Formats: sequence, C-alpha cells, structure tokens
Amino acid sequence: MGNIKKNHTIPKATAKRIPLYFRYLKTLDQSGVKRIKSKEFSKMIQIPSATIRRDFSHFGELGRSGYGYDVPYLIQVFSNILNTEIEKRIALIGVGNLGKALINNNFRNNTNLNIVVAFDANPELIGQTINGVQIEDIEKVGEIIKKEAISTVIMTVPSGKAQEVIDSVVEAGVTAILNFAPRRLRVPHNVQVQYIDLTTELQTLIYYDENYNHPELETI
Amino acid sequence: MGNIKKNHTIPKATAKRIPLYFRYLKTLDQSGVKRIKSKEFSKMIQIPSATIRRDFSHFGELGRSGYGYDVPYLIQVFSNILNTEIEKRIALIGVGNLGKALINNNFRNNTNLNIVVAFDANPELIGQTINGVQIEDIEKVGEIIKKEAISTVIMTVPSGKAQEVIDSVVEAGVTAILNFAPRRLRVPHNVQVQYIDLTTELQTLIYYDENYNHPELETI
Repeated sequence: MGNIKKNHTIPKATAKRIPLYFRYLKTLDQSGVKRIKSKEFSKMIQIPSATIRRDFSHFGELGRSGYGYDVPYLIQVFSNILNTEIEKRIALIGVGNLGKALINNNFRNNTNLNIVVAFDANPELIGQTINGVQIEDIEKVGEIIKKEAISTVIMTVPSGKAQEVIDSVVEAGVTAILNFAPRRLRVPHNVQVQYIDLTTELQTLIYYDENYNHPELETI
Repeated sequence: MGNIKKNHTIPKATAKRIPLYFRYLKTLDQSGVKRIKSKEFSKMIQIPSATIRRDFSHFGELGRSGYGYDVPYLIQVFSNILNTEIEKRIALIGVGNLGKALINNNFRNNTNLNIVVAFDANPELIGQTINGVQIEDIEKVGEIIKKEAISTVIMTVPSGKAQEVIDSVVEAGVTAILNFAPRRLRVPHNVQVQYIDLTTELQTLIYYDENYNHPELETI
C-alpha cells in the first residue's frame, strides 16, 4: 500500500494501459533493449505513439527527441505502480473446466500473482489438490478468506449461483473480483468487479468482422 | 451477410454494448417481462440510463415516456444485428487446459456459436474427440480451415508459437481471431483480433482496487 497518493493523478485510461506497457518493456529489457522510441514501441504494442507519449509524460519520463525512452527506468516506475514485488494472494471459486485451467496455469509468468486456495461444492473435488492448490468446501469460503486475509477472488461459477457466493466473500473482506459469469453482480461501492464474458467478446468480434472490417463492403 | 449497410451508422461504442443488451433482454423476455424502462434496465446491467437511451435511439426505438421499451422488438433488432440465427463455425487452436475448458463449454448458452474443430501439435491429442469436437493435427490447420470455410478462430497457444499459426490461418481465409496470448499479432488490415489477456485483466483489477476504490484512502 506504499505509493497510493501519487497514483491518483494518473488518468484511468492511462492506468488501464500500464500492465500492457509493463509486460512489453520487460520483454524488451530481457532482450537487451534499453532504449525505445515511441514510434517503435507503438508498432510493437499497437497503441498510437501520441497516446504512449502522453501516458509516459504522467510518469515524469518525457523521452528525449532522437533518444527515446529509458526502458529500465520505466520498468521500475511501472513495477512500483503495479506493486509487482508484492505477492497478491488470490482465491479461485468454482473448479470446473475453466477453474482447473486457471489453477494449472496459475499466472506462471507473473510470480506475484498466486492462486493460493480454491473452492467448490462438489464433494469429489473437495480435499483434492491441483497444481499445489487445495480445494476447499464452498461452505467455508467466508471463513477461510477472512482467516487468510485474501482480498482478491476469481469467480468461475455459473451466473445463477454467483450472487450468493459474492455476498459471503464481500462480507469476509474481498474488494476485487474477476468474474467469468456474464450476469452483473450487486456489490458495495468499495468493491471492484471486472467481468470477462467470453461469449460477448466472441459475438462482438464476429460482429465487427462482419460489419466494419471489410474495406470492400464499406459504403460510406 | 444480409443487413450490413444499416449497421454502419451505429457508433462503435454502441456496437460493443449490443451483445450485453441482447443477453439481458433475452433473460427478461424469458421471465415474461415485455416492457422495461431505461432506469430499471440501467440498474440491471449497470450502464447509465442516458447511455442506454442514446444507444437504443439508434435502432428507431425511442421508448415512450412512462411506458418503457418493447423487449421483444429490441430482441428482434439485436438478433438481426448479431445474426444470432446464423451458425458461426469456429476453430479452436491449442488444446491445453484453457482450450479443453472452451471445448467442453462450447458456448452452450449460444446455439449459434459452435466450435466445430480443434487443432493441436501433441500426437497424443490428435485424433481424439472432446465433447464431440475432433482434434486435428496443427500441420493441417490451413488446409482444413480452407476446406471448411471457417472465418473465426480462437487461439489458446503460447505467445511464442502464435504468429506462425496466425499466418497460415489468415492465408486460409480467417478474418476474426480471439486470442488468449498477450503478445500482439501481425495481421493484414482486414483481419480483426480481439485479445483476452487474463493476467493484465487481473493486474488492472488489483491496481484499481488498491488505488481508486477505497473512499477512505482518497486524498483529493
């Protein structure tokens, strides 16, 4: 919780791009690239170079003309912002196919993001361990999350059951929820929910593909 | 490809919300709700009612004051836009944990979205069938996609191998790609790529949770 105050000056749109910037800068650094121009970086990550320059200006890094940006410096700044040195302990709720996939992957390229416990209602799963993660009874979700002081959960349970579970985990202190069910959850104002709805993503993609993306069909 | 011209007048931001609107309207309709006011709908889907009214006005549905919107009419309009009556045949590339989860689920609540074939390089998987979907050799991906006239693929292969696969499927006629690897793909201008990067989503969520979302911490 170290550097909270300063971040309040970063626009939300910029904040959303930080994880992407951070990831690409780390790749560059690992490849030995220590300086990058906004135009080159723009091509790499497909964000307009003017946006990149504006975003980076919020971090006191203006990028000298003809020189570009200092990669290790930006990595340090973004690392502080994302608190990537601090472990985030995550609970996963719902050990179906998607839940199992997430446990098996467990953000392996990001050592600070860790699913440390999982929950399900299926008696055949409870007590089992997948990729080192113990599966606990969903009935104990509030109790265990409170004891472990976990504030982030990933939800991969069907929409119909999600709200009931959410109410208990919010009461137990959870403030950040990544939810794979499409139905909107009711949460207090201090709780952040991010929805990942694969069906909607796919429908949107197909819709764009069929309607916007074929130059020969454009009539305007 | 019936109703393409008219859709060009819908703003992109509106278009992005159509799948969500459609899904909720269907739920309402199934529950017997035939009329809905923008304020009620706003509470349900957590989009401002002014945005909903502006969006719906693009579809010639202005919502009479005190009456609300006609649910079956909007469903019909959105159904036409999303072409939900037409089957979208999808290829899944990469049958790891996430790929298996997607095949097993196979958008079961959306009868028009169908994964019809999957590809992998693992000899132990090739020839197998999961949830009725045959797993083919990744070496044959271009050939089979061309033969089957598939234009949409879901990619769940590691970043390092993605570009090579993409080049072959694009050559075979694919124009819409849902990609679960974070690294940006090089594609021609007529190809649409949607990235789903779970690590970035989670980092963004945690960042917001720690920096923006606790009223007691706000200093401004």
